[in-house]
Amino acid sequence: MTSNQLFNLIREKRSFLCIGLDTDINKIPGHLLQMKDPIFEFNKAIVDTTHNLVVAYKPNLAFYESLGAKGWESLEKTVDYIRRKTKDIFLIADAKRGDIGNTSALYARTFFETFNFDAVTLAPYMGLDTVSPFLDYEDKWSIILALTSNKSAEDFQYLTDKDSGKRLYETVLEKSSRWGTTDQMMYVVGATKAEALKDIRKIVPNHFLLVPGVGAQGGSLEEVAKYGMNDHCGLLVNSSRGIIYASSGEDFAEQAGTKAREMQKEMAGLLKENSLI
Amino acid sequence: MTSNQLFNLIREKRSFLCIGLDTDINKIPGHLLQMKDPIFEFNKAIVDTTHNLVVAYKPNLAFYESLGAKGWESLEKTVDYIRRKTKDIFLIADAKRGDIGNTSALYARTFFETFNFDAVTLAPYMGLDTVSPFLDYEDKWSIILALTSNKSAEDFQYLTDKDSGKRLYETVLEKSSRWGTTDQMMYVVGATKAEALKDIRKIVPNHFLLVPGVGAQGGSLEEVAKYGMNDHCGLLVNSSRGIIYASSGEDFAEQAGTKAREMQKEMAGLLKENSLI
Repeated sequence: MTSNQLFNLIREKRSFLCIGLDTDINKIPGHLLQMKDPIFEFNKAIVDTTHNLVVAYKPNLAFYESLGAKGWESLEKTVDYIRRKTKDIFLIADAKRGDIGNTSALYARTFFETFNFDAVTLAPYMGLDTVSPFLDYEDKWSIILALTSNKSAEDFQYLTDKDSGKRLYETVLEKSSRWGTTDQMMYVVGATKAEALKDIRKIVPNHFLLVPGVGAQGGSLEEVAKYGMNDHCGLLVNSSRGIIYASSGEDFAEQAGTKAREMQKEMAGLLKENSLI
Repeated sequence: MTSNQLFNLIREKRSFLCIGLDTDINKIPGHLLQMKDPIFEFNKAIVDTTHNLVVAYKPNLAFYESLGAKGWESLEKTVDYIRRKTKDIFLIADAKRGDIGNTSALYARTFFETFNFDAVTLAPYMGLDTVSPFLDYEDKWSIILALTSNKSAEDFQYLTDKDSGKRLYETVLEKSSRWGTTDQMMYVVGATKAEALKDIRKIVPNHFLLVPGVGAQGGSLEEVAKYGMNDHCGLLVNSSRGIIYASSGEDFAEQAGTKAREMQKEMAGLLKENSLI
């Protein structure tokens, strides 16, 4: 998918919502546990009630890996189900991988070939080698961690470089934005750091940003749009727990649909305000 | 395993060798491909000929993930086999994970509970939150990326902090070494940067270091020992391709054993020189 196609999808669906399928076997409604593959059944129900309201899904791999081989089967089935259900979706593997070149090439094979993801999140610590194998795939995306939503993001991401006077996350943005095009690279910027988006947009005015941290982690959608939206939206805003665990009862999927609808409506408003729809 | 127990193991086995089980379905001998689980059969044969010569094995997760659920099964079987074969081994999941706290907790569950690994490699970019869930497990280790062996390590790891005058990898070492004890934290320092070990030892004199990059990547074992060895060895030196792909024929395991024996002998010599055995 190109960035233009992604923008078209956003306009069609009047939404830039991404749902994080962080499906925890310890948190899903009890009645699902009797089924053969509870994780898949949960995801399937969530997808059924939300796929018209979102442009992206983002399973975080940790939740699947924690169940070993069985968890990977649930993930495979989830990806297949979403692909069968709808063509108009951007699928992100939230894996935060990063390794030396020959190993990164294998991770790229995993997420872009074994699985049919559109994008994968990557940690920048090891530099270009770790990203370049992912850039070899046409129409696939690398989403680099820049400024993350967690508290201890400041431990290293805020360090200031002696020569350039830039913070580490700014250096990551500046340097890595030269590695690929705006059709193959995005950045993770936490909604909890919404004001930083203003300066981030000076460094990467045209890139899409994947913004977690709205909802459970406390970030504001309005602030994110205010500081981060560009002329092709340029935002995918993720919500996980706030949507998928909206109810712990048998109506979990219906309630998730309601929550997603609320966010989609707010997003449609913001897109209109910015004359994008 | 405590650092003392690890040192005792090193003395018993006269070796500080770690074999990287980076088992690539495209590189293993052809005769294995007819078997039900070629990856496991390969690992099993390598373990059989090398387990007396090494103190650690380190499967890199990328190689298993690239095969989806089936790859995770091979990994589970490999870990179980090694645990049955020998009690005296340190098992490292080379996963380079790093995520926000609640997600990192799941990765910790994966590697320390679902699998019975002793240690997992972690990327420091997101700071303390990403490491602390791993530190909650007794007798388990977090191995933080500090200075990696790949070429583009310099992209960000060499940036110099304005306030402290320290490079990023030095700041990572300094800051994170206060997060846990020398019985639960190690660092990855590439053998290709052996001279940097001298200064690294000033920051973390007592920590164990996991050193990849000897062999295929060009690092020298003698240099690593010269600059990195401390009074309890303090080194696990990893070799992957140089050992496991020593031969592509039916004698692959035997040849891997021969290569591992060569390294073990060199290591015994270095341990003697330093009066550690």
